[in-house]
Amino acid sequence: MTGPRLTPLSASLPSTVPFVGPEAQERARGRPFRARLGANESVFGPSPAAIEAMERAAAQVWMYGDPENHDLRHALAGRHGVKPENIVVGEGIDGLLGYLVRLLVAPGDPVVTSAGAYPTFNYHVAGYGGVLHTVPYRDDREDALALAEKAREVDAKLVYLANPDNPMGTWLSAGEIAAMLEALPESTLLVLDEAYVEFAPEGTAPPIDAGDPRLIRMRTFSKAHGMAGARVGYAIGEAGLIAAFDKVRNHFGVGRIAQEGALAALGDKRHLAWVIAEVERARARIGEIARENGLTPLPSATNFVTIDCGGDGDFARAVLKGLIARDVFVRMPFVAPQDRCIRVTAGRPADLDIFAEALPGALADARRG
Amino acid sequence: MTGPRLTPLSASLPSTVPFVGPEAQERARGRPFRARLGANESVFGPSPAAIEAMERAAAQVWMYGDPENHDLRHALAGRHGVKPENIVVGEGIDGLLGYLVRLLVAPGDPVVTSAGAYPTFNYHVAGYGGVLHTVPYRDDREDALALAEKAREVDAKLVYLANPDNPMGTWLSAGEIAAMLEALPESTLLVLDEAYVEFAPEGTAPPIDAGDPRLIRMRTFSKAHGMAGARVGYAIGEAGLIAAFDKVRNHFGVGRIAQEGALAALGDKRHLAWVIAEVERARARIGEIARENGLTPLPSATNFVTIDCGGDGDFARAVLKGLIARDVFVRMPFVAPQDRCIRVTAGRPADLDIFAEALPGALADARRG
Repeated sequence: MTGPRLTPLSASLPSTVPFVGPEAQERARGRPFRARLGANESVFGPSPAAIEAMERAAAQVWMYGDPENHDLRHALAGRHGVKPENIVVGEGIDGLLGYLVRLLVAPGDPVVTSAGAYPTFNYHVAGYGGVLHTVPYRDDREDALALAEKAREVDAKLVYLANPDNPMGTWLSAGEIAAMLEALPESTLLVLDEAYVEFAPEGTAPPIDAGDPRLIRMRTFSKAHGMAGARVGYAIGEAGLIAAFDKVRNHFGVGRIAQEGALAALGDKRHLAWVIAEVERARARIGEIARENGLTPLPSATNFVTIDCGGDGDFARAVLKGLIARDVFVRMPFVAPQDRCIRVTAGRPADLDIFAEALPGALADARRG
Repeated sequence: MTGPRLTPLSASLPSTVPFVGPEAQERARGRPFRARLGANESVFGPSPAAIEAMERAAAQVWMYGDPENHDLRHALAGRHGVKPENIVVGEGIDGLLGYLVRLLVAPGDPVVTSAGAYPTFNYHVAGYGGVLHTVPYRDDREDALALAEKAREVDAKLVYLANPDNPMGTWLSAGEIAAMLEALPESTLLVLDEAYVEFAPEGTAPPIDAGDPRLIRMRTFSKAHGMAGARVGYAIGEAGLIAAFDKVRNHFGVGRIAQEGALAALGDKRHLAWVIAEVERARARIGEIARENGLTPLPSATNFVTIDCGGDGDFARAVLKGLIARDVFVRMPFVAPQDRCIRVTAGRPADLDIFAEALPGALADARRG
């Protein structure tokens, strides 16, 4: 019996889970984490209005969600001063990145990103047979002009930039993004992942020109809006490119509860402002804790702080291990030389108390080797 | 400015929405439907336990859902007497069909289905460049042996069969499915879409042999479990094939609320039994209404009844139009010669009262031409 015949491309791909969930770690450990600070979720939760909308939608879940995501798209268009035709809603930025790569990348096509940037983007590129070219970080920030130069060199169809950046937390100014766009070849599309942009200082996001065919921007309800488990992301771009998503997307993929929740979250500006203020406080506190322990926090425009542990990758891994052993879920999604760092999500005061209590022991263990 | 360069395959695809949602029709009409009987949703709603679980999960939605869908997969494995490794959970059967086609179908690869069967499957096949070969229905049922013969003739990688069938509502016996499997080439995979199987008589679903690499079965929480808007489907198959989904799937695609709701729904056998009994009653009532109006209801093992309007496609389309004008949402997702039919979802008594009231006028209009 020969069994199903995978395509040569599918057969060549590994069966992986890009990020192991904290639940899997908890099952393996046999006990829960005390602080969940590893996935840059918003521990401050969704807007009460969003919770109420989702609770209300639960009994209505026998109905498919609107496949056109009409109300949410129109509300987002109003918020961003673009047309609904400039917006596509999808199953998180992860889902939208998959569709975008599928639309643009055939086997062998060149794609550019930073070495150590978002693994799920790389997963999609590999999944469609694209060839990934990388550029190193410069001073722990994405190197926009080097990315543009590499895109020109390899004639990239797509170049990925997260601003603010994950996993470093650092950011570029709107001016730097604009300069990068100017430096890009005309037929290279910049996918600007702005998952964390609500946490960034004014002047981080370039003004939105939805008519620009060189740029597609990704936004999400998973971070500042505290709805990671609802899976709602959206892309803003030129209408022709946005319409192309209808060629390939799972039209009913964003369900009714998710759409209702996102719509309500969008309307609650007060909650968003509160979350952003709490995240600022938490970033400062994480910085203090790091410094008290002789470590260096990197500047952050996100809801996490990347901490330079001052050693090599093995040392940082040992610190991570010590924190996890002390029931603190954190991650270290870096490649060298950024793997000297660990990444800690902005938590509530009680979460950060636990982190503060665990860190000295984790460091002592790591120093003992 | 040249703009983004779509792949030749993507460029060749139309930008479509396979099913226009009732919400879009309501927006165009400027008023809501009085009865929502067009999408085979379960108007009887989800289990109260599922509603409660989803309400509870709403406040926890700041956390990503478990990317391994561990608890739900384990519960499903227990229910079906297979191992968790035989089950993959995805964003509805629609999402899983997309992943399956992507895994198996490269441009030019042959795929077999019935003419007039599930359009979203065809959408995925076209989307990955597969070549669709079709076989006509026979006596308004899928022709299993003709499908197997066609699969052999074209050396199909994949053959699709829905049992019970959508849009006809008819079904094959487990014995007919077993005979079809025996007639298939060894390296053709049968994707058996059992979205409606909970409504079918005993002996419709063949026994589950999860070790059989020739067969993958699709199940869903969208129909009998009343959770269409949550987007949870699953596939049961041989462990190696199931593991291959990890090569391509959106790992965080099934959110926290959806997973919690599905798990609770699975545990509520009483609600499921009640829904099935209500659907049986509704099917009988739809049959009566059809006959009272001189039309012929087809036998159904699903939560809808296909009604033969007794004329040609134009006549059935006119009946459909008359029903929609009378604020009854129904659909006519058929190709000739099945397009003499309309399809009516099993509704609550009040829904069917509205249908009964609207049908005579719709028929009179259609007969006037």
